[in-house]
Amino acid sequence: MEAYKVIQVKQSVFANNDADAEKLRHQLKDQKTFLLNLMSSPGSGKTTTLMRTIALLKDEMKIGVMEADIDSDVDAKTITTSGVRAIQLHTGGMCHLDADMTRQGLTEFGTQDLELVVLENVGNLVCPAEFDTGAVKNAMILSVPEGDDKPLKYPLMFSICDAVLINKIDTLSVFDFDMDAVKARIKKLNPNAEIFPVSARTGEGFEAWAAWLRKEVKEWTQS
Amino acid sequence: MEAYKVIQVKQSVFANNDADAEKLRHQLKDQKTFLLNLMSSPGSGKTTTLMRTIALLKDEMKIGVMEADIDSDVDAKTITTSGVRAIQLHTGGMCHLDADMTRQGLTEFGTQDLELVVLENVGNLVCPAEFDTGAVKNAMILSVPEGDDKPLKYPLMFSICDAVLINKIDTLSVFDFDMDAVKARIKKLNPNAEIFPVSARTGEGFEAWAAWLRKEVKEWTQS
Repeated sequence: MEAYKVIQVKQSVFANNDADAEKLRHQLKDQKTFLLNLMSSPGSGKTTTLMRTIALLKDEMKIGVMEADIDSDVDAKTITTSGVRAIQLHTGGMCHLDADMTRQGLTEFGTQDLELVVLENVGNLVCPAEFDTGAVKNAMILSVPEGDDKPLKYPLMFSICDAVLINKIDTLSVFDFDMDAVKARIKKLNPNAEIFPVSARTGEGFEAWAAWLRKEVKEWTQS
Repeated sequence: MEAYKVIQVKQSVFANNDADAEKLRHQLKDQKTFLLNLMSSPGSGKTTTLMRTIALLKDEMKIGVMEADIDSDVDAKTITTSGVRAIQLHTGGMCHLDADMTRQGLTEFGTQDLELVVLENVGNLVCPAEFDTGAVKNAMILSVPEGDDKPLKYPLMFSICDAVLINKIDTLSVFDFDMDAVKARIKKLNPNAEIFPVSARTGEGFEAWAAWLRKEVKEWTQS
């Protein structure tokens, strides 16, 4: 197990977050690092999903994880047990990360040698959707217990994500969750979204998700 | 079924939200209306919990519900089927309500004749915790599928709530959720918090929660 740092990121002073995010993406392109911004509600299974994803990909590429939270370091602690590097970012009460806060994390982390960095954003379906972090791709997790109406209530989040994982499908029999309806609601908001029904507990569906991520990382780091 | 209005609440111009919230509480005291601010993550079961609560209390007191969401009116539509009055507030992308936004909702709603108004806040464990809405009491729902580590990650929310409902206890056998650990974590942050394990699906635990709410409403409206 590796140790991990806990750092406090400070609110950005940049007025134009979009331009700053674009600049960060160029820097990441130059150093051949793919940054994935992973978002969801609290408790949808981001960390468990990451553990499965890391297990599938860590022999093929160098991976690092930045865990962002208001408080606590339980997630960074968990991630280090997977054998990849992790850092815990504390946002000082902020409900999201912007591009400069992400850059502060990347700089402290040291990402020159990493091909895939996953930013686990603050658990929140509202604020993180409004701020481009500089990530190459956005992904989100909706978990079955949260309900199939979430795309109706949080449309911006579903609109800006390139991939939507529908997690905890091993509990479908316990909840009223209409998979076809949720897929249709997501596609209506975002026709290009890739949707992956998965169970981070059983591993079901992870091959398709890992294949998508593998392809995206290759395209970014090798082109 | 009653009809319901959908209104757009605008961001407050008041610099001092705390003072404005205190003023709103005085107004509510004068008109003998108890306002409960109900918060949680997206998908923890706020609306289903409200439906059960309404069924238990609606013959004893006049109840109204203000549903706040970024978008959609699915919740207000559901609530009206319970036979109480509802209004849908749209926050225009805002991740929380403050006291003035709450007042805008109350004014549009017309609450003079109501003894209990429940404000279902935006699904979010971060931002709503930072803004006093003017409610008499704060309650939150943590659902079992979200995990028992949430008090560690979102301490402010758990600190400011008078009552914490732990919902979906009918799914305890499906998830790794340590009820004793979560209770200890909540009590450490907030020794006075009342904790109610419930299942909005089966009704288990609702008598204790309804008894607490009944007592609070009576103390506020009759003293």
